[in-house]
Amino acid sequence: MVAGIDAGSTAVKLVFFDGQQMGFWQRPTGWSPAEVTLQMLGQALREWNISREDLRHICGTGYGRVNLPFLNTTVTEIACHCRGAACLRPGVELVIDIGGQDAKGIQVGPKGRVLDFVMNDKCAAGTGRFLSVMAHALGLDVSELGTYAGGDAVPPQPINAMCTVFAESEVIGLIHRGVDRKAIVSGLHHSVARRVAAMVARFDGDGPLLFTGGVSRNEAIRLALEKELKRPVEVNEHSPYAGAIGAALIAWEKV
Amino acid sequence: MVAGIDAGSTAVKLVFFDGQQMGFWQRPTGWSPAEVTLQMLGQALREWNISREDLRHICGTGYGRVNLPFLNTTVTEIACHCRGAACLRPGVELVIDIGGQDAKGIQVGPKGRVLDFVMNDKCAAGTGRFLSVMAHALGLDVSELGTYAGGDAVPPQPINAMCTVFAESEVIGLIHRGVDRKAIVSGLHHSVARRVAAMVARFDGDGPLLFTGGVSRNEAIRLALEKELKRPVEVNEHSPYAGAIGAALIAWEKV
Ligand code: SF4
Repeated sequence: MVAGIDAGSTAVKLVFFDGQQMGFWQRPTGWSPAEVTLQMLGQALREWNISREDLRHICGTGYGRVNLPFLNTTVTEIACHCRGAACLRPGVELVIDIGGQDAKGIQVGPKGRVLDFVMNDKCAAGTGRFLSVMAHALGLDVSELGTYAGGDAVPPQPINAMCTVFAESEVIGLIHRGVDRKAIVSGLHHSVARRVAAMVARFDGDGPLLFTGGVSRNEAIRLALEKELKRPVEVNEHSPYAGAIGAALIAWEKV
Repeated sequence: MVAGIDAGSTAVKLVFFDGQQMGFWQRPTGWSPAEVTLQMLGQALREWNISREDLRHICGTGYGRVNLPFLNTTVTEIACHCRGAACLRPGVELVIDIGGQDAKGIQVGPKGRVLDFVMNDKCAAGTGRFLSVMAHALGLDVSELGTYAGGDAVPPQPINAMCTVFAESEVIGLIHRGVDRKAIVSGLHHSVARRVAAMVARFDGDGPLLFTGGVSRNEAIRLALEKELKRPVEVNEHSPYAGAIGAALIAWEKV
């Protein structure tokens, strides 16, 4: 048995792998990723009824990996996400990963190799953080956003500001003016999709595209990405675990 | 008598000019720049004991100028700021204007002409907005920041995130860890100065540099700009009125 851990800015994801089956767990990162990860590891060991010694290798990735002293190896996020995405969607050619505080585009070549990538972890716009700031301004939970707008029934309200800070003021102004909140939410989804689409614009093509990361749970963003990119965007129920899956697969190779 | 109005995102500035003397007023923009401007205009007319008909020309500039139906002419911000700065500091070669929601750099040539300029109004970092978000996180008023850090006594705490949203989280984390708030404020001033200095980097030279806009009231930012740019940075007590002064001078030419 091996484990892969993706210590992201918003959630820590854990994957167990025994060469055949995988198990999945995640928890909010909070202030202490190390503590959160250890608790989740304990829970996973109990659920699978194995002991700590049965874990022959733990591979970690993600922003918070430097804070986890019990890892056997660490691997970059790009390598893990690519590996995980190629496992979830064999033949994938482009991976779009939108996490809590960053967004990545990875062009995948034959045998699941990284051909090229782009990454934004400097600007909150086009990341999960943009959505959580806006959810707060609207008095909603970020997990509600995807279903709130209710598909294509309401045309999206254009959001002019690209910057998270300025867009937040714009949204507050729109609420004040009585603009339909569903239209605002739909406009915000398109804002994120437009920004991410611009980031990955140089990776054109029409091969399989997998959407991963925590934000891939938001179906409205997937649809907005399809509109912006004019190509099908797939998700997998385990898309949020792509990085941890990749880490677990790399751990498996080590033993 | 003529008037110049600079309707900024944060404050509306009004300047009266009779060919010799100038009068200065300003008010927070709030939700209705037009109403705020009319009230301030009324106050100014009463203080100078003149009637509305005595104002032979009103020239407007700034982001909110489109909402002021009583203007006789409107002029771009760059032209007005350059004109106003050249009046406040004859021979000025570089103007750095940091306002509530934008920052500009204007290279000034002979006779106060605009040679070149750069502007950031897309990203809240490096603008007054960054400072007001941070003041809020620290429980301070933005007007207190400049004196709060108390000069060079406390070394600045480096702020790693450039993005306003990520820097706010970083600041909250630093407060949690008990880092000296004076050091944090000083670090934030340097963050703004670094970002603005990068923006105007291509305008090198060592001629007179005037710092204008609402943020020029913050003496700590002026000092931080001097450190980043390695050249003297001047301010004038009327620096926040540079745009409105330029508009008033242009109005004077029209009559
Ligand atoms: S544009 Fe806004 S969200 Fe992006 S880096 Fe600037 S402040 Fe942050």
